Amino acid sequence: MGFEQAWLDYGKKEGYADAERIRYIYADADSAVMKNSVKELRDALAAFTGRDPQVNALSERKEGTGQIESICLVKKEGCRAEGYRLYEEKGGIVVEASDERGILYGVFALIFRMQRQETLAGIDLKKEPAMPLRMVNHWDNMDGSIERGYSGRSFFFENNEILVDERTVTYARLMASVGINGAVINNVNVKDQATYMITEKYFDKLREMSEIFAGYGIRFFMSLNYAAPVELGELDSADPLDEGVAAWWEKRMKIVYDAIPLLGGFLIKADSEGRPGPFTYGRDHADGANMLARAIEPYGGLIIWRCFVYNCRQDWRDRKTDRARSGYDNFMELDGRFRNNVILQIKNGPMDFQVREPVHPLFGGLTKTNQMLEVQIAQEYTGQQRHICYLIPWFKQILEFRTYVKETDDTVRDIVSGKTFGQKNCGMAAVANTGDDENWTGHDLAAANLYGFGRLCYEPELAAQEIAKEWIGLTYGRDQEVEETILFLLMESWPAYEKYTSPLGIGWMVNPSLHYGPSVDGYEYDRWGTYHRADHLGIGVNRSRNGTGYALLYREPHASVYDDMEKCPDELLLFFHHVPYTWKLGSGKTVIQHIYDTHFEGVEMVDEMARRFEELKGKVPEKVYGRVTGRLAHQKEHAREWRDQINTYFYRKSGIPDEKGREIF
Amino acid sequence: MGFEQAWLDYGKKEGYADAERIRYIYADADSAVMKNSVKELRDALAAFTGRDPQVNALSERKEGTGQIESICLVKKEGCRAEGYRLYEEKGGIVVEASDERGILYGVFALIFRMQRQETLAGIDLKKEPAMPLRMVNHWDNMDGSIERGYSGRSFFFENNEILVDERTVTYARLMASVGINGAVINNVNVKDQATYMITEKYFDKLREMSEIFAGYGIRFFMSLNYAAPVELGELDSADPLDEGVAAWWEKRMKIVYDAIPLLGGFLIKADSEGRPGPFTYGRDHADGANMLARAIEPYGGLIIWRCFVYNCRQDWRDRKTDRARSGYDNFMELDGRFRNNVILQIKNGPMDFQVREPVHPLFGGLTKTNQMLEVQIAQEYTGQQRHICYLIPWFKQILEFRTYVKETDDTVRDIVSGKTFGQKNCGMAAVANTGDDENWTGHDLAAANLYGFGRLCYEPELAAQEIAKEWIGLTYGRDQEVEETILFLLMESWPAYEKYTSPLGIGWMVNPSLHYGPSVDGYEYDRWGTYHRADHLGIGVNRSRNGTGYALLYREPHASVYDDMEKCPDELLLFFHHVPYTWKLGSGKTVIQHIYDTHFEGVEMVDEMARRFEELKGKVPEKVYGRVTGRLAHQKEHAREWRDQINTYFYRKSGIPDEKGREIF
Repeated sequence: MGFEQAWLDYGKKEGYADAERIRYIYADADSAVMKNSVKELRDALAAFTGRDPQVNALSERKEGTGQIESICLVKKEGCRAEGYRLYEEKGGIVVEASDERGILYGVFALIFRMQRQETLAGIDLKKEPAMPLRMVNHWDNMDGSIERGYSGRSFFFENNEILVDERTVTYARLMASVGINGAVINNVNVKDQATYMITEKYFDKLREMSEIFAGYGIRFFMSLNYAAPVELGELDSADPLDEGVAAWWEKRMKIVYDAIPLLGGFLIKADSEGRPGPFTYGRDHADGANMLARAIEPYGGLIIWRCFVYNCRQDWRDRKTDRARSGYDNFMELDGRFRNNVILQIKNGPMDFQVREPVHPLFGGLTKTNQMLEVQIAQEYTGQQRHICYLIPWFKQILEFRTYVKETDDTVRDIVSGKTFGQKNCGMAAVANTGDDENWTGHDLAAANLYGFGRLCYEPELAAQEIAKEWIGLTYGRDQEVEETILFLLMESWPAYEKYTSPLGIGWMVNPSLHYGPSVDGYEYDRWGTYHRADHLGIGVNRSRNGTGYALLYREPHASVYDDMEKCPDELLLFFHHVPYTWKLGSGKTVIQHIYDTHFEGVEMVDEMARRFEELKGKVPEKVYGRVTGRLAHQKEHAREWRDQINTYFYRKSGIPDEKGREIF
Repeated sequence: MGFEQAWLDYGKKEGYADAERIRYIYADADSAVMKNSVKELRDALAAFTGRDPQVNALSERKEGTGQIESICLVKKEGCRAEGYRLYEEKGGIVVEASDERGILYGVFALIFRMQRQETLAGIDLKKEPAMPLRMVNHWDNMDGSIERGYSGRSFFFENNEILVDERTVTYARLMASVGINGAVINNVNVKDQATYMITEKYFDKLREMSEIFAGYGIRFFMSLNYAAPVELGELDSADPLDEGVAAWWEKRMKIVYDAIPLLGGFLIKADSEGRPGPFTYGRDHADGANMLARAIEPYGGLIIWRCFVYNCRQDWRDRKTDRARSGYDNFMELDGRFRNNVILQIKNGPMDFQVREPVHPLFGGLTKTNQMLEVQIAQEYTGQQRHICYLIPWFKQILEFRTYVKETDDTVRDIVSGKTFGQKNCGMAAVANTGDDENWTGHDLAAANLYGFGRLCYEPELAAQEIAKEWIGLTYGRDQEVEETILFLLMESWPAYEKYTSPLGIGWMVNPSLHYGPSVDGYEYDRWGTYHRADHLGIGVNRSRNGTGYALLYREPHASVYDDMEKCPDELLLFFHHVPYTWKLGSGKTVIQHIYDTHFEGVEMVDEMARRFEELKGKVPEKVYGRVTGRLAHQKEHAREWRDQINTYFYRKSGIPDEKGREIF
């Protein structure tokens, strides 16, 4: 399928003197990354001005006339790794960095300023990435399907073959342009043919892809099947303490790295939702991760081990088992036992990418373990890229959450930036929202999440609005009305989605398997540990000290706040407490009236979003207008479905009418 | 896959003198059916006695010695079509009938008596089938899958090819042995390759199959795609009033009948659940059916037209549209407009094969239209052949329902037997429960439904217990404990299933699509028109004169009884009325207490069934014991799941505790 350029779709900038004056690029293109940096700059300038700039070696750089005429790419100590400086000097703009990635990121930063037609004169800024690892995780399967993919099929795989083509390059450019420096290309649920990705069969294509990625500063990762020695038919066991198993992995890693030397390492989902793991052999996750880490250590590889381990065969009648506790309970006692090239990848919340959850208590719990924050921009539970749901404001809240693991520098952001514990192997990963749809992300506005995620990892201090504005400017140009309208849509979208779906932090209430559309009891009598426990009098899960005790897994003052239904923040109340429908929230409303009000409000917000977007007819590309309008029409209808099902369910169950007498069925 | 013989698995009968004395068969095997009759008798006698009887022409028949030494098959006027007499005469047993099918049925009746080692001396009985058409409908797809099939894959189709083999013959023998005289071999949802069954591609195999069927008195039918002229790419329209369309069908039918002269006709599902039909062209179902009927008339063919037509895109918020009314509303006004070779096939109830429904109001409504009753022995909503659910008692109730369309001879049985209106094209059809599982029906005890259905069509006056006993005797022999135990299981099974699933006639409450396992709200907010409308105070659908008016579609006194919540039978109360949980039933219990009590009772009944069956260890074949025990273990657990989900749902919603304080979650 053909594809667009997303936010890399540069066009002629009539009358933009800052770009037009630039005639020269000075750079030493002595490596793939440097070559790509120069090429990006040159192509962009050519697009902006209609003229090719002249590219010369750095040594040929001349004093300028005072006006900005050139761009110089200068490698020089000064910035931290992957950081850059942009400044004006002697009639030129200098992109300075101590490493190639820094140069590449500086180049994109400069291009983006020009794409938005900002003035370059007097520019002087320094940027350094907050997080060492800024990764995307693709849940692409080798048959070409994408687990929880809402933008078409995979562009990495098709019919159990690996695709390397023009789209691979554009993908790498898009990622690099927002500072992504690592990508896992296959689904964490490694099954069937994907188990063979560590065998000779696929090495050539994988190496080719890893080289393209490397040219854009992206480390190439794969997901690994923990039971590979068994499933490849070579051993009877995958016991991590079995020397034969360890030897098998050592040998296998040597073979893999001989073939794909640029490989960054592996992502592993073990003992989770049916995946094999060390539990099978009575071992723990440190045993499993360390065995692989030892095998990969000689090559500088990383083992990224997911903490999404829970009992997915729970009995709904059982109120003692608490899925929310499982990540903490499984991993906390292993703190300090993992090797330095192991990173635990922890979902933002203890459940599974709901529209609202508390922050995962392993953040602030673990102090001696490398940690990576996992978020999901594939909108599995947040509208599946048919609803607009700009997630950056939500990620900001998670990153700014104080864990109180120390007196200062204790936020989730500090932890995954390496600030709290001085770690290097840490960062943030997003489950990607891309596919082979022409516009990459299905919903055109979902691209803001992809763009925003990268930007957030690099500069988490940016406001969500700022990131949104950057993306709008790059994608849709400088029209003020376009910017204001799309910014309005993006910033309204997550609050609106939260309002018209499951209330007050309780989550779920979706159609099983699909995870789309309302079904209040969809998971209530199922085995997944995801309950709301609503009855005639009230709703919510008691996770206080009198309940499952989950609230006490946090450090103070969180533990006391979450544990106390008087103090618990409204938006998480039902996550931590079972309360009567008549319970007065901090807002002064009762729980039931809050449910009714927010559901009516959420729909009104979507109506307003759709109304405002219609005014952009003729101001955004017709194709985009058509696609977005079509999805907004569905979102309007589907938001009503949510509103009516949720309100009806709780009205029928509680028997308490809406104070405002609105229509409930 | 290998297969067993079900109830045709004869064995040596040591010391059974009545069979041992028989040395001769006198018959004129002058046709396929007669040949098969003789073969059946001969094979059975050989199995019983270990000796081959001698087969002679009727003209060689000799006076006997007084003792029964022979069996004579005599065609002679006297019985109605397909009936037979069995009597002793001059040292022989005579099977007498006015047609071949009567002979065949008489032969099986005689074999079955011998298989149960009954005494033959002095035998003298006459049987005539009540219903002219006694049909099975297979929902088999050409890819080998079976829609709502719970016994493996199809034995008619595989990979879009038609299978004709030894199993085809055994199938025909099984059907004939219980009096089935028609079979539709493919799914009523005719899609993909099945549309091509009326083309040259498949004629050879279909003719071959039709000939095997005919040898056992079974008319061969197919399901038809109403839009075939369009989907085969030959016309742009399937408008029944378009002369070109009618001409196409006439030509096509000639081609089909030239190739498959034994074809009985077609079954059609039109304008239903996405299937095409005359509504597409603004025509009605009489237009559609009559056009096909005219085309098939020259060949004596029948068009069996299903009445399962309803709006499957309903809005759950809409309380005016009533799916229960749809069959009546769509077809009642067409009464008298259908040609004589059209039969309307009407499901037993207005919804869809629930564990309890009122009888379809078209029975007793229609007076000038051929009618066939459709039931389902594939246990789609009654445990999917993993739960035991012997349905014959339920079918008996349906057949004995008085419609009051006349003062006498007005039951459903009378109507479909042709007694009420003097019709010939009428009868009963069952959606079959067979597949390529070794035992044909998945659950060994589900074979009682297949056996029982055939017997019931032929002799609807038989009690359900009698039919069960026949089947047990044929299948598991004469052991008294075996008979009593299996009879207990069968007779308890439907009442138990009704008790632990959806209460008081409300139906559904199953997992969407699957139709298996509890999900009280599974269809409550969906588009299928299947709601329970439960709220905090009560439950049920108001179908009285103040509601959808459905109750008034019946003749008096039913209309007044159903319309009045004081008079409505308990088991249908929630089908017709929305009542408070505190409503006192005829039984004296409140609705809510009835729900709790029946759910606990249903589980206890299953426990007792399983306990009793365990005592048969060593008394039924080990294979059967293992299979049935395995399924009973699942049924026990799954019945608990039903009990707990239903009780919990209603306890949480009503807030009313169980009087007996049992555990509800």
